[in-house]
Amino acid sequence: MSERPYRVDVPLRWSDMDAYGHVNNVQFLRLLEDARVIGFQQWFGQDRSLLNEGVVVARHEIEYLAPLDFRHAPISVDMWATKISGSSFNLAYEVCDPAEVGTTMYARAETTLVAYDFETASPRRLRPDERVVLKGVAGDPVPFRWRRQVG
Amino acid sequence: MSERPYRVDVPLRWSDMDAYGHVNNVQFLRLLEDARVIGFQQWFGQDRSLLNEGVVVARHEIEYLAPLDFRHAPISVDMWATKISGSSFNLAYEVCDPAEVGTTMYARAETTLVAYDFETASPRRLRPDERVVLKGVAGDPVPFRWRRQVG
Amino acid sequence: MSERPYRVDVPLRWSDMDAYGHVNNVQFLRLLEDARVIGFQQWFGQDRSLLNEGVVVARHEIEYLAPLDFRHAPISVDMWATKISGSSFNLAYEVCDPAEVGTTMYARAETTLVAYDFETASPRRLRPDERVVLKGVAGDPVPFRWRRQVG
Amino acid sequence: MSERPYRVDVPLRWSDMDAYGHVNNVQFLRLLEDARVIGFQQWFGQDRSLLNEGVVVARHEIEYLAPLDFRHAPISVDMWATKISGSSFNLAYEVCDPAEVGTTMYARAETTLVAYDFETASPRRLRPDERVVLKGVAGDPVPFRWRRQVG
Repeated sequence: MSERPYRVDVPLRWSDMDAYGHVNNVQFLRLLEDARVIGFQQWFGQDRSLLNEGVVVARHEIEYLAPLDFRHAPISVDMWATKISGSSFNLAYEVCDPAEVGTTMYARAETTLVAYDFETASPRRLRPDERVVLKGVAGDPVPFRWRRQVG
Repeated sequence: MSERPYRVDVPLRWSDMDAYGHVNNVQFLRLLEDARVIGFQQWFGQDRSLLNEGVVVARHEIEYLAPLDFRHAPISVDMWATKISGSSFNLAYEVCDPAEVGTTMYARAETTLVAYDFETASPRRLRPDERVVLKGVAGDPVPFRWRRQVG
Repeated sequence: MSERPYRVDVPLRWSDMDAYGHVNNVQFLRLLEDARVIGFQQWFGQDRSLLNEGVVVARHEIEYLAPLDFRHAPISVDMWATKISGSSFNLAYEVCDPAEVGTTMYARAETTLVAYDFETASPRRLRPDERVVLKGVAGDPVPFRWRRQVG
Repeated sequence: MSERPYRVDVPLRWSDMDAYGHVNNVQFLRLLEDARVIGFQQWFGQDRSLLNEGVVVARHEIEYLAPLDFRHAPISVDMWATKISGSSFNLAYEVCDPAEVGTTMYARAETTLVAYDFETASPRRLRPDERVVLKGVAGDPVPFRWRRQVG
């Protein structure tokens, strides 16, 4: 598989900056939420079933690599799946400049998503069609720098 | 040391809820930001030097344990320091109900903060007085459930 | 009736500040949303029927009078009702310092709220009990400075 | 002049929705902030001097005409200037569907902006080049429905 199987561009908002004049660290998670919304619609189709009706966020991990200031250009988010198991998977992200803007990587992150049946309010198994999609965008673990230091 | 050395109450906002009617997973990080602002002012004093002039967020990790709905009661955030090193430390959190409201724990999280000199734009060593404060609120590692599964 | 029939305190968040280091002008509307949530629960009781099931926001008007910086003290929001009609009313606000903090007034605002039946998806008449509550907090029109200049 | 001298598209975010599942009324002001940031950069050039260094928001007025749900298509914001005076002007907005998406108008709004000298912390006169730009995008007053009822 390719190292970066999927890229979406996410526009910044002026209000993503905090009082320090940089995009706020919490807003990075907000940008990743939008990257998921964009990516999942394209991965899983018009019904958006995985995102809207079928997964819950169980976990986030994010490392900040460089400060990001507001600009009119979007940021690019590379996304791929890791650790696809019976009822959950990880979504890996790298937040970087679009190719025409620069080469800075701003953050690496990972979200654990659990397939969920909202009617029964309980976890469910990933459907075969969901697994096919996820395997098509599967990739390597996120190369976090800090994790081994914090264990 | 005690298991939960420091607790602050953080009010919710109605807008913390997302379209699912629960407090949004990203807003939990926002609530933790406020817990830090409140806690650091009390730990480090009126000048707020650590928070406002001297640390940057290098990393977040958060696990969601139970859905949280908006209510007029605040949430309680227990905070303590872990991994105090030369120029960084981890802040550990548990987000739960205030004692008079309930006993649910909603999330566990950890933020890595790096002492920073904004004038020279580079990491700095923790000052002796900062280390004294942090050691006074030091505690055990966060008992994350997912970490060993995602490594 | 008194000029300021009802006051609620609303906590600020550090993230209410924008890149200028002041509480962002849009966040003032967010603070007023919270003031309504707090106030309506107290005015209309535990079932929160007016807020959650029975009104929609039709209009906002706000004037900014002084810059507000983040501080640990809350802001106070004085609220009262104006223009109570068959199916709508205005909520007037003045955003100021709590008495123990200062005497600055930061903003004046007004929200037009329309009573709404979500089951039929159409406006409805204010119920008699809602009118009694609103008349108990009725007051004078908001003394906007700019309105006559913009008409 | 044309009735709608200037249009910018502003992307929605999933998080613009509130617990009712609609784009929150306060978020409309956030979308207008982004429309200003995009529009002013194009109107006033790369230095972004008007927006970033030279105006403060003195007033907002907004009327909501139709509920807006999150979708992947952006909203279009038509903007024009009204009431250009010595040191201030109004920015008028209509929030609607892009032509290829639909014909719904969601909101009308108006922001009063005051030219400001941040170095002296006081209002200033609009510069001749700023007045030229604003006159090039000047238009009629916003046809608010509620204003005459709330006077």
